[in-house]
Amino acid sequence: MTTCHGVVNLPEVRKVAIFGGTHGNEMSGVTLVNLWINNGAEIQRSGLTIKPFITNPQAVEKCTRYIDTDLNRAFTQDNLSVPRSEELPYEVRRAQEINQMFGPKGSPEAYDVIFDLHNTTSNMGCTLILESSKDHFNLQMVNYIKRAVAPASCTVLLTEHPLLQYSTTRSVGKHPIGLEVGPQPQGVLRSNIFESMRAIVKHALDFIELFNGGMEFQPCTVDVYRVSEKMDYPRDTNGNITAMVHPNLQDCDWEPLNRGDPMFQTFDGRTIEYEGGHTVYPAFINEAAYYEKHQAFTLTRRESLTANGIKASEM
Amino acid sequence: MTTCHGVVNLPEVRKVAIFGGTHGNEMSGVTLVNLWINNGAEIQRSGLTIKPFITNPQAVEKCTRYIDTDLNRAFTQDNLSVPRSEELPYEVRRAQEINQMFGPKGSPEAYDVIFDLHNTTSNMGCTLILESSKDHFNLQMVNYIKRAVAPASCTVLLTEHPLLQYSTTRSVGKHPIGLEVGPQPQGVLRSNIFESMRAIVKHALDFIELFNGGMEFQPCTVDVYRVSEKMDYPRDTNGNITAMVHPNLQDCDWEPLNRGDPMFQTFDGRTIEYEGGHTVYPAFINEAAYYEKHQAFTLTRRESLTANGIKASEM
Ligand SMILES: [Zn+2]
Ligand SMILES: [Zn+2]
Repeated sequence: MTTCHGVVNLPEVRKVAIFGGTHGNEMSGVTLVNLWINNGAEIQRSGLTIKPFITNPQAVEKCTRYIDTDLNRAFTQDNLSVPRSEELPYEVRRAQEINQMFGPKGSPEAYDVIFDLHNTTSNMGCTLILESSKDHFNLQMVNYIKRAVAPASCTVLLTEHPLLQYSTTRSVGKHPIGLEVGPQPQGVLRSNIFESMRAIVKHALDFIELFNGGMEFQPCTVDVYRVSEKMDYPRDTNGNITAMVHPNLQDCDWEPLNRGDPMFQTFDGRTIEYEGGHTVYPAFINEAAYYEKHQAFTLTRRESLTANGIKASEM
Repeated sequence: MTTCHGVVNLPEVRKVAIFGGTHGNEMSGVTLVNLWINNGAEIQRSGLTIKPFITNPQAVEKCTRYIDTDLNRAFTQDNLSVPRSEELPYEVRRAQEINQMFGPKGSPEAYDVIFDLHNTTSNMGCTLILESSKDHFNLQMVNYIKRAVAPASCTVLLTEHPLLQYSTTRSVGKHPIGLEVGPQPQGVLRSNIFESMRAIVKHALDFIELFNGGMEFQPCTVDVYRVSEKMDYPRDTNGNITAMVHPNLQDCDWEPLNRGDPMFQTFDGRTIEYEGGHTVYPAFINEAAYYEKHQAFTLTRRESLTANGIKASEM
């Protein structure tokens, strides 16, 4: 990696994977990836190997999030290095297989870019999920996508966090990027969500093709929402929830939440307010899959990241 | 049953059940019923036994629609009369238990009124589901509820049909009535949907209390939507869907669908139009649970039913 006039040379992208079905009931990614497995014309780009892949086929078959454990939390070094055994949870065995096919995680042989396609029941619109504020290739890619979809919006969530970050399926690749589109119920395919996801993947692949073709991308800034905290539902001593997301907050992902704003509504009609000191921006509000994770929503803070200019290095 | 001045005398209502969790991932009914099991003050009415009851506790525990088979299709005479055995599917065993507790179906000992609380991912708003056009008590009850919630709307779906009707959990009661509120994703609790459902149950119980108290309900007409046909997604020879609900139809439950109107959008962008000769009113559009039932939506026809006047008979 060398710098010249503020532009960093990065290796060309050779191997790209598009994952669907990491959660088996998130139908946009499942359907798009199956479509592209049958006919890849739409995702072909010159000089690139692009592999559409269903990561959790048993969960897709059952139209459920997972069989034994959440695949998208399973790519820890412990799981990936434990000896193979039929006794392991299905998703841990699957994580090992995926790591062999698309990794190994952290190795030079790993896939260059892995897109992982998700849906949420939250009103988050199109959200690109980055794992690192230092990945200038990904920052340039999301900057490109944001401009390409404008005036439609595409939000960037940064999951970099000392405690809250988890080991995703896409993390076996060098440049992992999640795409989360909602609102869409589990098990449902909505055409608007499907076409939004399809368009973003198209723009992402276009970006990679331009990058490989030698285009220079100038330094830029990217507004992101960085995960700062998770907020659980109020619960009783048995762990049962005692309140719902307040109607004023429901569907208001990415909108500012200030001290004193309504946050929950108890079953007996009381309002519980946000008491934090800073303005935060909630996301994944009332996501179906997060009740069991004891999370009513994620709090984020706004931040501007600077991306270096990038250019593919000459071979 | 005797008629006097167009008003039919019907027996007082003694036993009422409110079912939640017939589908374990439909959270409004699950949550309301659990709330009322803990504290029934809100649903107490003088002279009435009202039993809130979770019908499929294992499915609720797993937050899934069912364990082995759909409980809300399981109340056939065959299932209810087959000898008890641990070999039977869980929901068939459960159906037999429910039939013993709240039936037997068709017998004089059966509960008088059974409400069954459901959610749908479809944009159906509040929908009361009747099984018979001849049940004047239920027709009067839905008429009362429709007036009580106005100007909010509450639609009535009539499932009476020679082929498409199925054997519901609530059918063990003398006056079965379903309440379906949406849109709400599976596994999610939305405060607006929760409070709408709660209000309708309140009005229903008020109606029963007034009826028992001797109030005379005058003859009336009730506009209903009668199930006429089910429509599947277009599929390939492997049974995989090849099209989505068209964006012009998505979320347009209860709106007229005419010949030539867009119905599906294929993955390659073609529009498939409705070709039927009559105006129909779709419902359950893109309901998550109905993909496996090969149903993209239900077609209904509008109809006006006449209800006799009713009055509780003197004891
Ligand atoms: Zn997901
Ligand atoms: Zn249901």
